[in-house]
Amino acid sequence: MKVLKTKNIGFCFGVKRAVKMVLKEAAAAKDMVYTVGPIIHNPQMVNILEEKGVVPVNDVFQIKSGTVVFRTHGIRKDEEEYIKKTGLKIIDATCPFVKRVRQHAMYLKKMGYTVVIIGDKNHPEVKSVLSYLDNDGIVLQGPAGLDKEKVGVVCQTTLDKDTFVNIVKELIGGVEELRIYNTICESTQVRQKEAITLSGKVDMMLVVGGKSSSNTTKRYKVVHKVQPNTHHIETENNIKPDWFKEIHTVGITGGASTPDLIIDVVERRVKNF
Amino acid sequence: MKVLKTKNIGFCFGVKRAVKMVLKEAAAAKDMVYTVGPIIHNPQMVNILEEKGVVPVNDVFQIKSGTVVFRTHGIRKDEEEYIKKTGLKIIDATCPFVKRVRQHAMYLKKMGYTVVIIGDKNHPEVKSVLSYLDNDGIVLQGPAGLDKEKVGVVCQTTLDKDTFVNIVKELIGGVEELRIYNTICESTQVRQKEAITLSGKVDMMLVVGGKSSSNTTKRYKVVHKVQPNTHHIETENNIKPDWFKEIHTVGITGGASTPDLIIDVVERRVKNF
Repeated sequence: MKVLKTKNIGFCFGVKRAVKMVLKEAAAAKDMVYTVGPIIHNPQMVNILEEKGVVPVNDVFQIKSGTVVFRTHGIRKDEEEYIKKTGLKIIDATCPFVKRVRQHAMYLKKMGYTVVIIGDKNHPEVKSVLSYLDNDGIVLQGPAGLDKEKVGVVCQTTLDKDTFVNIVKELIGGVEELRIYNTICESTQVRQKEAITLSGKVDMMLVVGGKSSSNTTKRYKVVHKVQPNTHHIETENNIKPDWFKEIHTVGITGGASTPDLIIDVVERRVKNF
Repeated sequence: MKVLKTKNIGFCFGVKRAVKMVLKEAAAAKDMVYTVGPIIHNPQMVNILEEKGVVPVNDVFQIKSGTVVFRTHGIRKDEEEYIKKTGLKIIDATCPFVKRVRQHAMYLKKMGYTVVIIGDKNHPEVKSVLSYLDNDGIVLQGPAGLDKEKVGVVCQTTLDKDTFVNIVKELIGGVEELRIYNTICESTQVRQKEAITLSGKVDMMLVVGGKSSSNTTKRYKVVHKVQPNTHHIETENNIKPDWFKEIHTVGITGGASTPDLIIDVVERRVKNF
């Protein structure tokens, strides 16, 4: 079997940086190291970290001592306030690109704009940004018109561009001033483009990454549109041999939080079909 | 024949204001009164004003004395500089909404944005705005992508909304920050909506106004899409009797610079068919 991979694959910049920070803290810390939610949306990586004493917690307010790691998606304002007030040690592994979304959003609010965040209202990144606006913002998941004077727009870093354009374009006609920060991160844009290009050259695509990873799931949807014969797998264990009948070339791509190791194992397995 | 008119018809706010200012000056002035280009794009009105001693000139730099009227569309920066340097009396009848386009554009330039003006590059309003940017701006007449960091957008006051949205939406994906001032004037928006609504209720539409009037021509195009049986006429003299065969209801609308008087004459003529 011929296997082709997208050029940019494995952890993105923000995830690589966060994992490095957590591992360093885990090796040095004498007390517990907590992450607010799983550090990244990849169950395999979360398991590896748990073995090193890094424990994901959902309820920050139960932590009384130790180190708290802010994951790539960022933290909610009330959570940060509690952690600071309690005097816990902080390792801020929020992706700098995610922080930029928050900064733009807060600036827009300060300047009197009605702030729109385009993204998934249940995604921790969006929840984080909204919390720093004291919930004074509108989350748009799909096209909708707004009848406001000044509207400022930011978006989830892992949003796909078509969704962004489709939602923004509905806002143009209805407002007097529309100020848009395209906060889709470079990595998301580059990887999406590479995945689409690769899809056209192969008989089947495999998108590797956590089923709960927002950007992997979106990547799968985008790739699936171009190449209907596409599967979303978490690990090599999800691969089914009957997928490979009459298939000569397979393309592999992954999410921002998919470890190189998992990609390598998948690649090796596919080559043997 | 049943005749229906759009509610808002005749001179718009800016044109009414400009004509009033010119007439007042013509009555009081002892010297010549010049307008830079025709005061409005309506030949009938320009003739009436000429009888009162108001002369349109194309080349401002030939004026050595008297009063210069800045028309609704505004003036070019170099023209204003010459007029001020020469010490001519100025009556600034630039429409306040047009001035707002210029002010937003100059602010965007000052703030480091690449300025995009959406509109007709040959229209005096667009030429005026561009001149105040020292020609450091991009005029877009149709959809085009731009690969810039910060882009600021304004548009011609008489642009139709669909054109505006279609051009802006092409810019969304390619820039990091996009700041859009929707400078289409209220009057243009309201009148366009009224014209479209009326088109659906009649057998034929007449759009009355100067053939060189940008906003009348655009209104005609928009109305023609909804009601294919639409004619653009300058005066009642352009009306052809054979248009009215099997027609029971006629809708009348006009441009921002079409005098009430012309509308009235057209209405009377049509009623008699």
